[in-house]
Amino acid sequence: MTTREALFDDLSALLGKRGLLTDGGDMERYRVDWPGYRGAAPLAVARPSTTRQVADVVSYCHRHDIPLVPQGGHSGLVGGALPDADYPELVLSLERMTAIRHVDPINFTMSVDGGCVLQSIKDAAAAADCDFPLSLGAQGSCQIGGNVSTNAGGLNVLRYGMMRQLVLGLEVVLPDGRIYNGMKALHKNNTGYDLKQLFIGAEGTLGIVTGAVLKLFPRPQVSRTALLACPDIDAVLKLYALARRSCCDLLTAFELVPRTCLELAMEALPELRDPLETPSPVYVLMEAAASGPADLDAMIENLFERGFEAGALTDGVLASSETQARNLWHIREAMLEGQRNRGEHLRTDISIPISSLSAFHERASHEIQDLYPQATVIAYGHIGDGNLHFNILPPPGLEADERAALLHELEERLFGIVDDFDGSISAEHGIGRFKQSAFLETLSEPEYDIMRGLKHLLDPRCLMSPGRILPRPID
Amino acid sequence: MTTREALFDDLSALLGKRGLLTDGGDMERYRVDWPGYRGAAPLAVARPSTTRQVADVVSYCHRHDIPLVPQGGHSGLVGGALPDADYPELVLSLERMTAIRHVDPINFTMSVDGGCVLQSIKDAAAAADCDFPLSLGAQGSCQIGGNVSTNAGGLNVLRYGMMRQLVLGLEVVLPDGRIYNGMKALHKNNTGYDLKQLFIGAEGTLGIVTGAVLKLFPRPQVSRTALLACPDIDAVLKLYALARRSCCDLLTAFELVPRTCLELAMEALPELRDPLETPSPVYVLMEAAASGPADLDAMIENLFERGFEAGALTDGVLASSETQARNLWHIREAMLEGQRNRGEHLRTDISIPISSLSAFHERASHEIQDLYPQATVIAYGHIGDGNLHFNILPPPGLEADERAALLHELEERLFGIVDDFDGSISAEHGIGRFKQSAFLETLSEPEYDIMRGLKHLLDPRCLMSPGRILPRPID
Repeated sequence: MTTREALFDDLSALLGKRGLLTDGGDMERYRVDWPGYRGAAPLAVARPSTTRQVADVVSYCHRHDIPLVPQGGHSGLVGGALPDADYPELVLSLERMTAIRHVDPINFTMSVDGGCVLQSIKDAAAAADCDFPLSLGAQGSCQIGGNVSTNAGGLNVLRYGMMRQLVLGLEVVLPDGRIYNGMKALHKNNTGYDLKQLFIGAEGTLGIVTGAVLKLFPRPQVSRTALLACPDIDAVLKLYALARRSCCDLLTAFELVPRTCLELAMEALPELRDPLETPSPVYVLMEAAASGPADLDAMIENLFERGFEAGALTDGVLASSETQARNLWHIREAMLEGQRNRGEHLRTDISIPISSLSAFHERASHEIQDLYPQATVIAYGHIGDGNLHFNILPPPGLEADERAALLHELEERLFGIVDDFDGSISAEHGIGRFKQSAFLETLSEPEYDIMRGLKHLLDPRCLMSPGRILPRPID
Repeated sequence: MTTREALFDDLSALLGKRGLLTDGGDMERYRVDWPGYRGAAPLAVARPSTTRQVADVVSYCHRHDIPLVPQGGHSGLVGGALPDADYPELVLSLERMTAIRHVDPINFTMSVDGGCVLQSIKDAAAAADCDFPLSLGAQGSCQIGGNVSTNAGGLNVLRYGMMRQLVLGLEVVLPDGRIYNGMKALHKNNTGYDLKQLFIGAEGTLGIVTGAVLKLFPRPQVSRTALLACPDIDAVLKLYALARRSCCDLLTAFELVPRTCLELAMEALPELRDPLETPSPVYVLMEAAASGPADLDAMIENLFERGFEAGALTDGVLASSETQARNLWHIREAMLEGQRNRGEHLRTDISIPISSLSAFHERASHEIQDLYPQATVIAYGHIGDGNLHFNILPPPGLEADERAALLHELEERLFGIVDDFDGSISAEHGIGRFKQSAFLETLSEPEYDIMRGLKHLLDPRCLMSPGRILPRPID
């Protein structure tokens, strides 16, 4: 380990004055994630402006045994990008690498720097009459390198898949400072092991994503939103299978909104009216979109007919204007706000086979209510992804530590049920540090061995985001 | 290494009488691939009937240092599954593992044994009113484990992606005989490194795929086929970008058919009529399909209008009946037959960014024609995949060895041009053994090191399909 001063001098020489922050005040914002989690003070913050500079910094750290953590837009939810306290880390931020390298509207691809903010990518795609479909609440600040590294999901997974499905090529600075250049804009390429897959979803533990070739799509020209009322979750699942058919897989959203969530929404936004005449136990908020002359109204009417016939649908409204569509989407936003207003609660991001969602919901709700009759279950989610945010409001009036202990207990119990249903404890948020212990419990021996081996193969000194996903090895 | 007799005894004990073939005649068909390539005699052919048996055989081989090669339906084109001559291998065939384990039409998934024939999977999906979209010429014989291991492509990649996009979970017997059980039927799962990606497209060098969870789709109810005439390949590319939009990404095929290929088709099938009044330099054979009430005619008419307006289209016909549609598809089949009738030629399977297809085609054609004026270029392909079968008929009248030398020279030259266009020398056929030397030349040092490291991590004794993709290590 080199001295702090030598480190500053050497990195300044590599990165220039603007490329290195060492002042505590300047470094403050690199310690905090959007949800408010706070990490330790970093050794320094490196802000390279080229892939070459990233490689130089990483190579330097490799030679001097300095742990480092790459950072995107600070919107992670599992603490993966926060600097460590026990082993002070160099933060490597890609915020100065924001070039849209190339847009190709015939190949339906775009090549970008790893530090590009998602919204700027979406804007550049739109300017070429294309669409980059990844859509997240954080799209105004999150960076594409982070999206790749966390295999981001978001709102349009049902139609376009997770980030993994949207990546054709990657450029990665490896933990030893070498550059893996896989920036090919090819839709098909079967030449050996597909190395880019290693880095997608690896949460920065195997390398730093400095560039990506992304898949684009035709830009939707028309869209329709509808709210459907269903007797129960089983009916919602039936309706989903019908909707895939009736809407010719042009669905962009199929969201479960239980009555309790609608009521939370009306609590948060008093001007919100009950959208249908009679209250219903469950609702679906759905959207379809098309880039050409598709008659979406006919498709949704077809779904209404088939849904009624199958007993999967009791009522529904198809938005007849953009304003009406926006109002329907307000329900979902207000519901999230209503949830926040109720104070700290257990938030989860689990997935289950879609066909088991109803059985899972029933069992989990019953177990929670039996044990903690005063707890409130708030479960909504992306039906088409099998992704449920099964959240739990603890009973009111608990002390802070009592509350924390209960939330932990609730999570353990819920994850146990998830396991019984062959589900995942992290559908899209990843593992980072916060979910590590629960994650490690789910791993089989061969899985653990291979993951360990991959980390060791690419980062034998364990300097790249050490302790995220897998624990730091015990020397 | 154990003796041959001990090997037979031990494997018989593990697999039972039906599970092991040792007779030369019985083993004959395991030496031959569909294109007619022939491998050496295997040590024996193991035909396990359960994943446990696969694991037992692999574990046995691991303990006794016996190389083995998993086999699917023998339709590979790069010699990957043919037994080796220098180091006699045990063939492990999954042909007895053909169970459809579970079909889930709500989750749009199916769990299957690795030895399931693709057609049986497609049939089981159809029986549940779903579609498994992977479509290959070999679908009546190829096995899903082979499809996964080679990341198969085929006819519907434009709409549904390669095999990698269609896999949600895998069960793999690792080279040390342990079982990796990743058979989760989840559409979203961000828990650590996505291990299944390692085995997709690894051509059996990292493990044996004994089970898979596949993604299903709504079954198409209507489809439309059209043949379009374009002035040149540039126009085809423009038309493709328009078609993605007009047809709302419901395109299932967008095939380039140059006039030379249409003439080859008419040569092979004399009753085939010129489908349009005036001959055109290039044609596109396209298809769109939908699972619900989509007005495909309106979409294709919209494309005709926009194509004419943009000067990308000079004529076209939209099939008005299924018979007419089938007749249009006959063109493609007859064209392949016409090509075969012309005798041995260079067959390639390259990919290029779609936007470069025209420039690539022009440069490659010119170079070939300049050097060998009597050679004939036959280039057709899947435009939406950037996948060109740029084939070359050598001049007539060459001796066999002269011909072979020329084909090799042509391939080297063509691959050089592919490299200049940042393309791939193997869009979907893979590497196996036949493309290994050309493949190795394209690898950078970090790529080679990581691939080597992956092989070493999972198969340190190099017993699993040794010498495929990467060369056998020199001790």
